[in-house]
Amino acid sequence: MASYETFRVRPDGGVLSVTFDAPPINLTGPEFVRDLVTLLAELARPDASRVVVFDSADPDFFLPHVDLTRVAEYTAEAGKGGGPGDASLGMVFHRLSRTPAVTIAKVRGRARGAGSEFLLACDMRFASRENAVLGQPEVGIGAPPGAGALQHLTRLLGRGRALEAVVTAADFDADLAERYGWINRAVPDAELDAFVAALAARISGFPRDALIAAKATVNDISLPSVPAVRADAALFQQLVRGETAQQRIAELFEQGLQIRGDTELRLGDALSRLKRAD
Amino acid sequence: MASYETFRVRPDGGVLSVTFDAPPINLTGPEFVRDLVTLLAELARPDASRVVVFDSADPDFFLPHVDLTRVAEYTAEAGKGGGPGDASLGMVFHRLSRTPAVTIAKVRGRARGAGSEFLLACDMRFASRENAVLGQPEVGIGAPPGAGALQHLTRLLGRGRALEAVVTAADFDADLAERYGWINRAVPDAELDAFVAALAARISGFPRDALIAAKATVNDISLPSVPAVRADAALFQQLVRGETAQQRIAELFEQGLQIRGDTELRLGDALSRLKRAD
Amino acid sequence: MASYETFRVRPDGGVLSVTFDAPPINLTGPEFVRDLVTLLAELARPDASRVVVFDSADPDFFLPHVDLTRVAEYTAEAGKGGGPGDASLGMVFHRLSRTPAVTIAKVRGRARGAGSEFLLACDMRFASRENAVLGQPEVGIGAPPGAGALQHLTRLLGRGRALEAVVTAADFDADLAERYGWINRAVPDAELDAFVAALAARISGFPRDALIAAKATVNDISLPSVPAVRADAALFQQLVRGETAQQRIAELFEQGLQIRGDTELRLGDALSRLKRAD
Repeated sequence: MASYETFRVRPDGGVLSVTFDAPPINLTGPEFVRDLVTLLAELARPDASRVVVFDSADPDFFLPHVDLTRVAEYTAEAGKGGGPGDASLGMVFHRLSRTPAVTIAKVRGRARGAGSEFLLACDMRFASRENAVLGQPEVGIGAPPGAGALQHLTRLLGRGRALEAVVTAADFDADLAERYGWINRAVPDAELDAFVAALAARISGFPRDALIAAKATVNDISLPSVPAVRADAALFQQLVRGETAQQRIAELFEQGLQIRGDTELRLGDALSRLKRAD
Repeated sequence: MASYETFRVRPDGGVLSVTFDAPPINLTGPEFVRDLVTLLAELARPDASRVVVFDSADPDFFLPHVDLTRVAEYTAEAGKGGGPGDASLGMVFHRLSRTPAVTIAKVRGRARGAGSEFLLACDMRFASRENAVLGQPEVGIGAPPGAGALQHLTRLLGRGRALEAVVTAADFDADLAERYGWINRAVPDAELDAFVAALAARISGFPRDALIAAKATVNDISLPSVPAVRADAALFQQLVRGETAQQRIAELFEQGLQIRGDTELRLGDALSRLKRAD
Repeated sequence: MASYETFRVRPDGGVLSVTFDAPPINLTGPEFVRDLVTLLAELARPDASRVVVFDSADPDFFLPHVDLTRVAEYTAEAGKGGGPGDASLGMVFHRLSRTPAVTIAKVRGRARGAGSEFLLACDMRFASRENAVLGQPEVGIGAPPGAGALQHLTRLLGRGRALEAVVTAADFDADLAERYGWINRAVPDAELDAFVAALAARISGFPRDALIAAKATVNDISLPSVPAVRADAALFQQLVRGETAQQRIAELFEQGLQIRGDTELRLGDALSRLKRAD
């Protein structure tokens, strides 16, 4: 089995369990991207697990967002082994959506920005009713989301609710995320592990060819085109480097961004306290 | 009026009532397909009813699924009178979606596989809150759904919930089906008949040209293309004939498939007890 | 600032408040269309407000529907300044959806026909749980909706629920409209003003370029094409002039259409009391 820096990986019957474990808060950086690319190569093997369950070792942070000090690095990492135009988190997540395995996210803690986009790239997502927070903070910082949220949320939530999620950059709890269709279901925290384990075990006993064929057709209907994925990534990469976004990011770092604490726990609120943009 | 083997048909004001009545459990076989093709021809007449309500004489089975001993027969029946490429249940259901009449399904009992796909091809579907079960068991058997479920569920439920429904092959009750958008609404069983009758009577008094024009535009936006319908049907027909699916079907028949009893009542559970596929 | 006949407009921080105030019941006529076209020109200026909130001075009527005595007039008004094919309310609403400002509708009272289509063209819509009614009465009158409802409702609600809304021509309360996705959320009336004000203020502090970029991408994914908008408008304009629709409109005027009173308050019920169409 491949080795990973930011994941703990355990095969369990026909199900592969992948637990994010990158202290202090599971930021999405180059190591995470490298691990994800490695995992995708593993899942493409004919003898790979049919089902993967992703969760986090940290109950407060599923994947909080990208490491904003290392955007160029993780973007370069994303491009390794891909063709021209593939150097983006969005393209890696697009390949995740196309993996033959059935992917299930079990969410506790914050999943914002690229963390929410990771969820959206999975095939299903179940979140703790008491302890999950989803959000796309990018517009509050100064760029549109770049790794799939615009594409997926518009299709899942419809135009009005997708615009609300994206332009308010607000935190959504699991119940509201369920009502809007951002996640499959909010499940009581005490039942979440057993619920997901039963679902994964059930699917893993079904014929591989049927799983792959059904997923491929659903993907053909619902996934964005590769040019759309690339265009969203390019626009994010451009605006996030701009002066407005860089000033707002600097202001957030002064308040404790990327450190375990109140700013990261309540990022939606922190965005509304930033200086108003011109 | 045309005569039918598997339906009881009663005009009632401007509404045509069609009750499935094919004991023992309303399996979808060649007679049902022939009756449906006949009905579609009737509904295309200029003096036809503007509204059709479909229900079942059997409170436990709306349409449980296709008769798995007669796939070749009902497929051939579906092709009669159509062009090349039209020999599939999916194409008959596609024509049902395009009928000028407004079609309403009133669901009590099981509607799985092609039974659920029949519902999805109708214009609206209302289900008994206490007594309706929907599911797409195909992937558990060894083939992707072939008569519209992949197309409709992906558009109605979104990618994540459609994948959940299809790859878990699980039974959904009416409340969950409503939350996911699989049906229009779950209605208390005691209110369902009056609710649907009032709705149908209301629509039947409205101008025919407006009904047809509105439905045609909604169809143009939301129905899959004919090549997509044909491709799904071809893939189902190929995989259901394969060794894996045939073994699993044989195992289900040993447990009582297509007989009134526990396996048919709780097919979602029965699938999880099959031998794990390699 | 431009002057308006049917709106009261107040800048408030970075948010522009637009209150419909066209007694007796805010019918959509040529003056409203002229005001909306003027507003769209204002919102295209580089120094315009980033956020607009629309509400009504009349608690019973948000926008009840078009003035059916002045269809030709408001249609001509809609075409002023546009190119060939732009003379329709549908095209004006399409331009509203494309405005760079973020548009939020705060709904109390009736929003039917073009009133509902105005809501659907906005970026978000929040409605009073106790006091909001949505509906598309057009099919009950004798024409398909022509200003966006078919396009938006099919994408937001899915095929089954969109067909239900459109072919029943029934009144929907805020809770059902929320469950179906017609509005973002139903909010208790006592909380609605503060809820929308906080949301609007939050968004108005975010960087303009990011808001515009995010909205443009969501629009590209979710808005209908211009030819589709024009085709829907043409079909409405044709059928609403027909004999059937004109007779039904005349019958409604005898019952008090376009007058403050029971027929307008409960238009969904009034439609079901019309003589049955042949």
